[in-house]
Amino acid sequence: MTTYSKFESDFRVRPDDLDMFQHVHNSKYFDYVLAARYDQMERCYGMSMDAFLKRGYGWVVQTAHVDYKRPLGLGDYFIVRTGIVTINAKGCRVEFTILNKATGKVCCDGWFDYVMINLQTGRGEIVPEDVIEKYTV
Amino acid sequence: MTTYSKFESDFRVRPDDLDMFQHVHNSKYFDYVLAARYDQMERCYGMSMDAFLKRGYGWVVQTAHVDYKRPLGLGDYFIVRTGIVTINAKGCRVEFTILNKATGKVCCDGWFDYVMINLQTGRGEIVPEDVIEKYTV
Amino acid sequence: MTTYSKFESDFRVRPDDLDMFQHVHNSKYFDYVLAARYDQMERCYGMSMDAFLKRGYGWVVQTAHVDYKRPLGLGDYFIVRTGIVTINAKGCRVEFTILNKATGKVCCDGWFDYVMINLQTGRGEIVPEDVIEKYTV
Amino acid sequence: MTTYSKFESDFRVRPDDLDMFQHVHNSKYFDYVLAARYDQMERCYGMSMDAFLKRGYGWVVQTAHVDYKRPLGLGDYFIVRTGIVTINAKGCRVEFTILNKATGKVCCDGWFDYVMINLQTGRGEIVPEDVIEKYTV
Repeated sequence: MTTYSKFESDFRVRPDDLDMFQHVHNSKYFDYVLAARYDQMERCYGMSMDAFLKRGYGWVVQTAHVDYKRPLGLGDYFIVRTGIVTINAKGCRVEFTILNKATGKVCCDGWFDYVMINLQTGRGEIVPEDVIEKYTV
Repeated sequence: MTTYSKFESDFRVRPDDLDMFQHVHNSKYFDYVLAARYDQMERCYGMSMDAFLKRGYGWVVQTAHVDYKRPLGLGDYFIVRTGIVTINAKGCRVEFTILNKATGKVCCDGWFDYVMINLQTGRGEIVPEDVIEKYTV
Repeated sequence: MTTYSKFESDFRVRPDDLDMFQHVHNSKYFDYVLAARYDQMERCYGMSMDAFLKRGYGWVVQTAHVDYKRPLGLGDYFIVRTGIVTINAKGCRVEFTILNKATGKVCCDGWFDYVMINLQTGRGEIVPEDVIEKYTV
Repeated sequence: MTTYSKFESDFRVRPDDLDMFQHVHNSKYFDYVLAARYDQMERCYGMSMDAFLKRGYGWVVQTAHVDYKRPLGLGDYFIVRTGIVTINAKGCRVEFTILNKATGKVCCDGWFDYVMINLQTGRGEIVPEDVIEKYTV
């Protein structure tokens, strides 16, 4: 069984991320994970999102699962740690943990299942061998 | 075993909901469900979100689970159908389905687990009997 | 001097539009005007945004000016009234007023200057005569 | 006539900031300026937004004016430079320029007029002398 690397991206809560209870909106954690993946695809894997787009591929979320533990608030610095759990011809599962940088405590964690699509047709596509290789780090 | 009612809210995709692939952002479906719940708490249950806030209570998402099936696009009309699956002193689970109004097809579905909190302390609170009653429809 | 029609679109504040002061985020009024224009281009003018996109054109905001008067809050219903002030080969100016439906009072008003671009090149484009005609209502 | 300091904050475009044309949404530049002000109030002036909130004050945008020049895109790094133009008992005007870090070119610039409010009443409040002093740098 392969074990895959975990990577980290640093971010800070923006005021427009807050909800009326002065906590980060539940939906924003989604966007944070997306931002981390884009960042890490570019820095940590052999193929950026841009490179995917240029080959006519995109990644689409099939399932999202998030467990909320502690909210982030105004100006908080946080880390998004993500890593592949499984990747094969059908797609991949990515785990994530969002940590408050000041306390080191987990804000939320969960996973996303992605499938690769053909941007032209919008339909699912077999993940090519070279992509799987580049993401097997 | 109690069966709870399902309720529906009508919405339309706004241009600012779209991502760079011209589909509704994954995270926005979260916001759609939230909007539907607020609407339905006010119209369909005996206690609006405002009434909760006035009593010093809030609802916080503990877990979110979303299965994406078909994206919504620019200007699409859609229905958010939600219903309680379980509710007790600890919290409630709400199921949802988002349907494209033009095609009747499911865009995504899933569930949210909520806990009630005390807005003053930010901590979990026992859901009072009269709240459970009002939500048992 | 031509006088142009004003058109109205109805919307409702979504919970994710609120900022931490429980008012609609300043930036969201922008998105509301955009949503109204898309709606009105489709319903009230002879050429929808989709039709523009299909001809390879897009509209880009050059200048935005907003005067804030009264905030909108949770669940408020509102009207976005917009109308062309000037339109010519170089672009158009659109005025808007956002009104709280319950009170009839102005929440904010202002104007946007738009230029038409060629989506392929991203550069400004002369607004064709037939477009000016369709928007001269 | 007083000349006030300019301060800079560094940010990066998040994927959820993009519109369907793969450019940053017009409304997001607003949020970027807000984020920069919060950051700079904390780092560069003698009084953070938090300190305002604790004294029962808030700042509200009265007028916003933005001139768009060049769009930001996916993953772009940018600088938000802001500075006070005038500040007195009635409020202040803040100028801003958003620069693409890679090219040094201006993406957009403009200004915001702010008034100080009493969070309890929601009404305008005279800006206290010590606040004006702290912001006169």
